[in-house]
Amino acid sequence: MYVRPDVESMAGYTPGEQPHGGKFIKLNTNENPYPPSAAAMRAIAAVSPQSLMRYPDPLAGAFRIRAAEIHFNVLPEISPDWILCGNGSDDILTIVTRALVGAGETLRLPYPSYVLYKTLAQIQGARFQEVRFAADWSLPDDFSAPASGLKLAFLPNPNSPTGTTVSPGRILEIAERLPCPLLVDEAYADFANENCLSLVARCDRIMVSRTLSKSHALAGLRFGYLVAHPRLVEQFVKVKDSYNCDALSIAAATAAIDDQAWLAETRAKVIATRGRLTQGLAELGFKVVPSQANFVWAVHEKHSAKTIYERLKTSGVLVRYMNYAGWGDGLRISVGTDGQIDALLGLLREIVRIA
Amino acid sequence: MYVRPDVESMAGYTPGEQPHGGKFIKLNTNENPYPPSAAAMRAIAAVSPQSLMRYPDPLAGAFRIRAAEIHFNVLPEISPDWILCGNGSDDILTIVTRALVGAGETLRLPYPSYVLYKTLAQIQGARFQEVRFAADWSLPDDFSAPASGLKLAFLPNPNSPTGTTVSPGRILEIAERLPCPLLVDEAYADFANENCLSLVARCDRIMVSRTLSKSHALAGLRFGYLVAHPRLVEQFVKVKDSYNCDALSIAAATAAIDDQAWLAETRAKVIATRGRLTQGLAELGFKVVPSQANFVWAVHEKHSAKTIYERLKTSGVLVRYMNYAGWGDGLRISVGTDGQIDALLGLLREIVRIA
Repeated sequence: MYVRPDVESMAGYTPGEQPHGGKFIKLNTNENPYPPSAAAMRAIAAVSPQSLMRYPDPLAGAFRIRAAEIHFNVLPEISPDWILCGNGSDDILTIVTRALVGAGETLRLPYPSYVLYKTLAQIQGARFQEVRFAADWSLPDDFSAPASGLKLAFLPNPNSPTGTTVSPGRILEIAERLPCPLLVDEAYADFANENCLSLVARCDRIMVSRTLSKSHALAGLRFGYLVAHPRLVEQFVKVKDSYNCDALSIAAATAAIDDQAWLAETRAKVIATRGRLTQGLAELGFKVVPSQANFVWAVHEKHSAKTIYERLKTSGVLVRYMNYAGWGDGLRISVGTDGQIDALLGLLREIVRIA
Repeated sequence: MYVRPDVESMAGYTPGEQPHGGKFIKLNTNENPYPPSAAAMRAIAAVSPQSLMRYPDPLAGAFRIRAAEIHFNVLPEISPDWILCGNGSDDILTIVTRALVGAGETLRLPYPSYVLYKTLAQIQGARFQEVRFAADWSLPDDFSAPASGLKLAFLPNPNSPTGTTVSPGRILEIAERLPCPLLVDEAYADFANENCLSLVARCDRIMVSRTLSKSHALAGLRFGYLVAHPRLVEQFVKVKDSYNCDALSIAAATAAIDDQAWLAETRAKVIATRGRLTQGLAELGFKVVPSQANFVWAVHEKHSAKTIYERLKTSGVLVRYMNYAGWGDGLRISVGTDGQIDALLGLLREIVRIA
């Protein structure tokens, strides 16, 4: 019905369940289990009716300035014009795809990884090329091979659904061989031991995206950003919607990244609970991939992931069941509070015993 | 530098000046001069930290339900699935363009009108075809003529920069002849005597977009929506970012459209001041097009629009200077408060005398 055949034929990306109503322990979409910084809430309360009447700052200057100051330690070359703000990092991924990848051209991504990347290629009428991770979750050289029409590569690091990482050294090696820009999607990097921010100055093809949805507990706010060479950022500005970030989210996001003490404390709690979750799952017979993110990927040695997912849901615990064609299925479980993880492990103990 | 040639060669859309700092009377971007409904502010204050931790409702269900109730009077066929919510109506225009217009295909728009439409075509690698308004601001039959690759037509109604309207009867006639969907951009329709909402049920090619930026005084919030046939809406959902509207804007927008008493009162004030502005400008020798929007288009009989714009800016009053190739230039002046318009007219009296 009037829409482009590329769009009509695609299924569309299905985000994780967001139940509204009902009491669920929600461990399915990698949200932070702790409420956001009080400074972010105060910044929202301080936004006046008079400032909502006006259009917001098109480039979210206040955030750019503060983010540049915060990242200066690892990236001394940075200035506000190295930063592009977005309505969630999904907006950043959309902008970059639209700017770089035309109809019929190619976008590369690892497999299995974030399903949205394929959707972004499909909407563009572009092709996508999946390169499988090796069995040890390293990236094979194929990922940096030239290919006809290759215009962009996405690399989530840490990866979803596995929580594994590729080292910055290896990523630099890949980017230097690639004929096109490489976007390192660092949605979960605040939970990892290393990140690629410093590489943005070492290779102008490397771009790093971040989000406030996970580590800053602001999924409901929609705020993400890209760190990239200013010559790229100025092109992306042409493609984004003029006022893509609203006045409330700019204020809250600026206050949130300013509160690095909150981030350090929350990060430590999530990482500690991730350890407990990993160990608890292993004791129940799950194979768990060591994770650098705020979730773990778990497959049970005997019981079907689908069945476990359904039994948990019936008992009020939502985890993410994922099934990758030709690769396998499993459960992606977000790191909740200690109490939530205790409840999950208690239920799993029952399920694994009787299943 | 790696970007698509279509993007590299385009200039990008330049939004109106948004001075941060300095005291300007801002009559350049058609914002509402009155603060938004107190109900919207209360809704923002009521959003809890716990709800910001979570992803927002992907379809903004609360808003869809309330908007469907409010529009039921003029469009009894409506239900929530006729409504697509966006991060400002710019997001709606972007989604619709991406869903309907592929690279090399054609988007039609009237001339002169909203410059962003061309930018949207350029980003898609699509062509645009401008059809000139007639001298009396009616739309010629050319606007409904078939054309190779024509996939979408945009019609701002009321139009910017002129504030003129095409009647719903004429728009239905055009849509019935067009081979593609017609998006009637009703950003300013709350200030007009008529609108096209009821036509959405009469012709499935007619879509209507609305924004809360102008009539609801929430430009800083970024919230707009589309009313269209559900078969189109379900395709657009595939193209939009998963969580394109944030929790704060969904809450505030729902409260804002619920406050129809605030809207009626504000609308009446703006329309009354528009009359004073129109008359005041005419008395100073401006030709002013009768406007159905919250701005007027004015050209002085003797003095250059550019000079007047610059002198006003020096005196702290921002209006929008616009210059359309092959058509002419002039000033688009937003309707402010009575006090702001008195200040503007006072300055113009000086400028016109000495210029």
